[in-house]
Amino acid sequence: MTRIPPLSHDRINRAVSEALSEDLGLVGDITTNATIPETARISTSITARQAGVVSGIELAQAAFAQMNASISFHAEKHDGNATKPGDVIATIAGPARAILSAERVALNFMGAMSGIASLTRDYVNAVAHTKTTIVDTRKTTPGLRAFEKYAVRCGGGRNHRFGLFDAILIKDNHIAACGGIALALKAAKNNASHLVKIEIEVDTLDQLHEVDFAIADCVLLDNMTLDTLREAVGHVDGRALTEASGGVNLDTVAAIAQTGVDLISVGALTHSAPVLDLGLDFKTS
Amino acid sequence: MTRIPPLSHDRINRAVSEALSEDLGLVGDITTNATIPETARISTSITARQAGVVSGIELAQAAFAQMNASISFHAEKHDGNATKPGDVIATIAGPARAILSAERVALNFMGAMSGIASLTRDYVNAVAHTKTTIVDTRKTTPGLRAFEKYAVRCGGGRNHRFGLFDAILIKDNHIAACGGIALALKAAKNNASHLVKIEIEVDTLDQLHEVDFAIADCVLLDNMTLDTLREAVGHVDGRALTEASGGVNLDTVAAIAQTGVDLISVGALTHSAPVLDLGLDFKTS
Amino acid sequence: MTRIPPLSHDRINRAVSEALSEDLGLVGDITTNATIPETARISTSITARQAGVVSGIELAQAAFAQMNASISFHAEKHDGNATKPGDVIATIAGPARAILSAERVALNFMGAMSGIASLTRDYVNAVAHTKTTIVDTRKTTPGLRAFEKYAVRCGGGRNHRFGLFDAILIKDNHIAACGGIALALKAAKNNASHLVKIEIEVDTLDQLHEVDFAIADCVLLDNMTLDTLREAVGHVDGRALTEASGGVNLDTVAAIAQTGVDLISVGALTHSAPVLDLGLDFKTS
Amino acid sequence: MTRIPPLSHDRINRAVSEALSEDLGLVGDITTNATIPETARISTSITARQAGVVSGIELAQAAFAQMNASISFHAEKHDGNATKPGDVIATIAGPARAILSAERVALNFMGAMSGIASLTRDYVNAVAHTKTTIVDTRKTTPGLRAFEKYAVRCGGGRNHRFGLFDAILIKDNHIAACGGIALALKAAKNNASHLVKIEIEVDTLDQLHEVDFAIADCVLLDNMTLDTLREAVGHVDGRALTEASGGVNLDTVAAIAQTGVDLISVGALTHSAPVLDLGLDFKTS
Amino acid sequence: MTRIPPLSHDRINRAVSEALSEDLGLVGDITTNATIPETARISTSITARQAGVVSGIELAQAAFAQMNASISFHAEKHDGNATKPGDVIATIAGPARAILSAERVALNFMGAMSGIASLTRDYVNAVAHTKTTIVDTRKTTPGLRAFEKYAVRCGGGRNHRFGLFDAILIKDNHIAACGGIALALKAAKNNASHLVKIEIEVDTLDQLHEVDFAIADCVLLDNMTLDTLREAVGHVDGRALTEASGGVNLDTVAAIAQTGVDLISVGALTHSAPVLDLGLDFKTS
Amino acid sequence: MTRIPPLSHDRINRAVSEALSEDLGLVGDITTNATIPETARISTSITARQAGVVSGIELAQAAFAQMNASISFHAEKHDGNATKPGDVIATIAGPARAILSAERVALNFMGAMSGIASLTRDYVNAVAHTKTTIVDTRKTTPGLRAFEKYAVRCGGGRNHRFGLFDAILIKDNHIAACGGIALALKAAKNNASHLVKIEIEVDTLDQLHEVDFAIADCVLLDNMTLDTLREAVGHVDGRALTEASGGVNLDTVAAIAQTGVDLISVGALTHSAPVLDLGLDFKTS
Repeated sequence: MTRIPPLSHDRINRAVSEALSEDLGLVGDITTNATIPETARISTSITARQAGVVSGIELAQAAFAQMNASISFHAEKHDGNATKPGDVIATIAGPARAILSAERVALNFMGAMSGIASLTRDYVNAVAHTKTTIVDTRKTTPGLRAFEKYAVRCGGGRNHRFGLFDAILIKDNHIAACGGIALALKAAKNNASHLVKIEIEVDTLDQLHEVDFAIADCVLLDNMTLDTLREAVGHVDGRALTEASGGVNLDTVAAIAQTGVDLISVGALTHSAPVLDLGLDFKTS
Repeated sequence: MTRIPPLSHDRINRAVSEALSEDLGLVGDITTNATIPETARISTSITARQAGVVSGIELAQAAFAQMNASISFHAEKHDGNATKPGDVIATIAGPARAILSAERVALNFMGAMSGIASLTRDYVNAVAHTKTTIVDTRKTTPGLRAFEKYAVRCGGGRNHRFGLFDAILIKDNHIAACGGIALALKAAKNNASHLVKIEIEVDTLDQLHEVDFAIADCVLLDNMTLDTLREAVGHVDGRALTEASGGVNLDTVAAIAQTGVDLISVGALTHSAPVLDLGLDFKTS
Repeated sequence: MTRIPPLSHDRINRAVSEALSEDLGLVGDITTNATIPETARISTSITARQAGVVSGIELAQAAFAQMNASISFHAEKHDGNATKPGDVIATIAGPARAILSAERVALNFMGAMSGIASLTRDYVNAVAHTKTTIVDTRKTTPGLRAFEKYAVRCGGGRNHRFGLFDAILIKDNHIAACGGIALALKAAKNNASHLVKIEIEVDTLDQLHEVDFAIADCVLLDNMTLDTLREAVGHVDGRALTEASGGVNLDTVAAIAQTGVDLISVGALTHSAPVLDLGLDFKTS
Repeated sequence: MTRIPPLSHDRINRAVSEALSEDLGLVGDITTNATIPETARISTSITARQAGVVSGIELAQAAFAQMNASISFHAEKHDGNATKPGDVIATIAGPARAILSAERVALNFMGAMSGIASLTRDYVNAVAHTKTTIVDTRKTTPGLRAFEKYAVRCGGGRNHRFGLFDAILIKDNHIAACGGIALALKAAKNNASHLVKIEIEVDTLDQLHEVDFAIADCVLLDNMTLDTLREAVGHVDGRALTEASGGVNLDTVAAIAQTGVDLISVGALTHSAPVLDLGLDFKTS
Repeated sequence: MTRIPPLSHDRINRAVSEALSEDLGLVGDITTNATIPETARISTSITARQAGVVSGIELAQAAFAQMNASISFHAEKHDGNATKPGDVIATIAGPARAILSAERVALNFMGAMSGIASLTRDYVNAVAHTKTTIVDTRKTTPGLRAFEKYAVRCGGGRNHRFGLFDAILIKDNHIAACGGIALALKAAKNNASHLVKIEIEVDTLDQLHEVDFAIADCVLLDNMTLDTLREAVGHVDGRALTEASGGVNLDTVAAIAQTGVDLISVGALTHSAPVLDLGLDFKTS
Repeated sequence: MTRIPPLSHDRINRAVSEALSEDLGLVGDITTNATIPETARISTSITARQAGVVSGIELAQAAFAQMNASISFHAEKHDGNATKPGDVIATIAGPARAILSAERVALNFMGAMSGIASLTRDYVNAVAHTKTTIVDTRKTTPGLRAFEKYAVRCGGGRNHRFGLFDAILIKDNHIAACGGIALALKAAKNNASHLVKIEIEVDTLDQLHEVDFAIADCVLLDNMTLDTLREAVGHVDGRALTEASGGVNLDTVAAIAQTGVDLISVGALTHSAPVLDLGLDFKTS
């Protein structure tokens, strides 16, 4: 059983602070300030209006806490839990002004992250009968990668590299610039830290045959047919990890997994997941 | 004919700088630095792989420019233009390292924004035979609201308020806290700047009858049936703008527009638009 | 009765943090560190040395709290209260070093804001026998607009738009570029969000006659004589709000109000208010 | 002849960037974007509407340059120059949108700084027949101290210490905590860097007699009558600099200078200077 | 031949900007502003006063460029080049004020980085007759790790992981918390991204025998005698990389290398390298 | 007895936050997250492995506190205390993950600062039989000057000016640009605030003879022989402070002090102090 790596509180706080500042501007919530007395209190809950997987509870909590430290926030679900319509995810109570002013930021974060977790869960379930792992890509929303990759983990997926800095992934242009697969792998080996893994993308079996498995830790098999994928997995034969990408959707993912690839990377997890519908249900106290 | 309001260069530069920093970390693009010679040059183009509407060209341009000021970037399309698969959106040439290192950030911004513009265009087209305007909501990606609202304009939609600060929108909780619709509107009027408009959300015709149109500039008709919407529009009779929300999708939007509402707000434009598929096509020079 | 909109704690904390950093540099308060023992404690009060209106208590409190969280701060007055010389506004006790090091920043914020509130009160009192409202302008100290506009509210004034972003105000240059008042109003209407109000500046009655009151929510009557103002108010006849500006001072403001204008905007409130004289009175404990 | 120390470009750029962001928000100048075509160009000049002293030309220039690098800005006056009503301070030409959007920020900086320079010049002129120097205080607008102290120099004044960090100024509380003037001076001497000067505030001649002039570089004579000041200057007799403060205004400053004090510090220079009235005169091109 | 990975210009610019701000404060270079005319120009060179290896030329260049964009800077050496006393590293010409004000920041960066490069070169030379690689550690100056690791490369060393984020290094506490080496390696494997390498630290041969080389990519042999190291290298027998650490100095490093370890990590490279003595030689022009 | 001036908590917190962010990236401590259960707790101590002087305890404390506010930190030594190998400096207990993730940042700050304090103590001890004071320079690590100058005070040294902004130090280039020592001193006097001290660097006795001691508060005697230094001290004869620099090391410093100079400035204190070896000793709880 894998762990969901925790998010840094510092990063959460900065992202939430920016989002609140974006929504409040220098003027603040003029509706709430005009219509709600400073002393009014309110009780409410974040409720799922759709089945899915929860992610981002800490960001919602931070949004309310930053507006007013006296707001109480009690999580009824944990990140990674499944929800069905009507499930209460968290209960919130405190000053009405602050709760209303923070509501949209809290839901925007949690809705987007839960949407990613939910879509990831669908992919993970689709390949559950195989030993293939679903992983994400770098096709994330600019500025929110840490949260989106965390959401993928909440949905049961695993993370590919976080950025250009933590692993080598040699693509066609790198190969062309080096004069071929063998030379590109050697250049990578010569320049990388001894603690950096090396993956190389190949589009054909011919390219795959040029790969030196003493150097490559992983091969990315891009846009191959199922038959080619199967043959590629056979050729690699455990000397490196195999990752499939391209043309992956919920209809095709199971068949791709059945070719025996170790990993399938799915850009849609982070770039095209619809939001999970969440709402705030109020009971004036 | 409405204009697409320009994005601030300062805001673009800061967002792109953060995104590059997220992807490069303090280590940089270790693949490219290991495999591409410092002097290698490359020519490439951003190409659409899907039909849609372009948005975010300036962000892509800024991503390349920030990596290396000597990269040339020539836009072949403009924000708001339609694309079909294979269309070249921009041509790019310069140092290979910098172009490869900036590629993902450029495409992540532009793909997401073009996805929003494309979905907006679909909604706008669906109501083109009516005089109803499609508007967005505050259900945007935290930190990227300015870009997403700009993308809605590129798709032909209009913008609702930008944040909690620039217009009053009185919802059920505000009404409850004030002791009714009449009192809430009066509180808003008394406290708002004379240059702020006031919108009020009503769920029923009974609520609508309580609205004082000497104060309300706009009424938000939430989750009403088509019949009720029609009756509500008749009751308002031009004394305020009418906005419909709730249960809006591409199947329902035309019928909602035919009730005669002035505006339909659609959260999905920004919270659930899939990315528009764009790619970089390289020709090593 | 209107409310004074609250300031955001986050904004207060950032402004105070910058001001302390400006005064302390990287070296700190070298006088206090050299002469005051680390364990010395002190009791003191912020006292008015002049009659006026208090504003900015939270900023003073934040200055002391940021220097040392153990300082106790008890407000004896609230923002918007009148003071006479000798009135205690707040009592403060705690570590002597921290109190002395934060003193100037606390007083600089509160003195400036109270100065604005006091001058605003003078204007408000001068027109109290009319139904005219005193409003501020965008002629504020760069970086401190939120605080200065808040201080205007403390003095009993109301706020004009906060920036270029939250309302349309069409001036002579905009009119010239559009080819006339009618076209400028139409351009504004076509491009503005449906929740943005539109004000237009006119210098003559002829210009006023060109205004389409189906579009303009407010007209700014700039630099008109009392007779012209009166005639302008009569012409508008409630179809829009009327705002007078230009040549406004404490000697002229009552007569201007008596022309019947709804609003008078006064740049001096924020750009030329002298500081309210406040001091720290110490009792070594 | 003393020099006006230059302002750092980095500091100017950051202050102007923050001010523009405050005025434009994330939405931008909605009036100008709606009414002015993107290609319209304009010529204009910053003109004095009042006699005074110019300060802050570089900040105005930076405001226009940051909005659009293609705006031309030609200074006709230099910081420290006197103006009379109608004098052109700078001519500006370029894209109309950018010029109109930056106008208020440019004038807000320059008006405030020129107001300080003008008031300083009045004080300097009032003591021109003596050898007394007018200096400022730390009673400055939070966040803008560098600009305000620069403006004092433009008006012919000199700067007191910049913050708590660059000189020692021992006041009554420091003296009380140390157990007297002699002990406070010794503590300062023992703890200060050898390159830091030491000033001590005294309220009476008795206190002055306790000052050890082997340690004190300067004595601040606070709130003394003219006779006492004269006697104090005689007692010091050149062993340290003498600085008068308290009760200084344009009516009293000459008499205070004539007591022979070396310096007179005036808080009003920065905390209560009214803005200098400047305007933008447009000629559509 | 390995490449020196380039530093990001953005990172260089931010570090230099902070350093200049630290040295200049809000007041600026009061010596230079008082004594050097604004129009004075100067020619100078950065000269080595010691033998060593150059690193950080771009940071020196940025320091001068940020002070005044018109300063010309011509590098005569490149990062990684050896110097002997008297060697000119760069020639600089332009406004005297700006050059003098930036001098210390430029030399502080370059002196520290060249010190690291020079010490690294000494270690690299000491093991040149072996096939062992010298690598750095995370014992770097807070905030400057990217520059210090770059300097190590300039000296001919290689980089260990950059932070806690880009590789797994299991130490005694991790082992203890997991209940042993086998379990710790399994936990790492289960939770790490497939593109992250795994290193494990062992202090004894017994511990080494517990290592599963199907999981561990590298073993860190900490504080072992030469004999034990030799035996450890024999036991690993190429199934993983071997890294020695502990008790490494210029007297011991060659013997450690001769045990056959692949890598030797040396904290002193970054935490205890003395500065390389550099100076600015002026010729007034 | 002099005091060690306290560090600002705000500055400590920002530096520690940046350092943690540098080490953790956006991914976090992947080793600890993979191998240590979230609920594991640990007890540990920071222990000296070398004799020296402690400095930076508050920075270590902040590193642990920022990772997890529930970590307890108890200092057993205070900044400025001497240590011998094995001495416990602080005991720490709490969540194992947070303690392990913060360890390196805590030790990097404290090791570097204690290294500076220890080297300073050696210099101070070497001149303890004289009345000479050891002072630092501006040759500090960019971004860390406040901490390094604090560490010098912990070791018993004193601080020279903090930056270019708080004292005037006229060097050869300033003299050349002004046309000689007399003119340079006059320019400094004319332009400096009355609260700024003036130091001038001379290389020869001839230059020293040109110094006007009515202006110069201190003379920097650079790179003089012991005999020349002695003669220079005799010539100055108490009319200004004397400071020696150049060629200072632990072998030469006593003799230099014995020439009678008031101060000796030593760049090596901050630019070349080796780290003090500190470690974390764990006891799993």
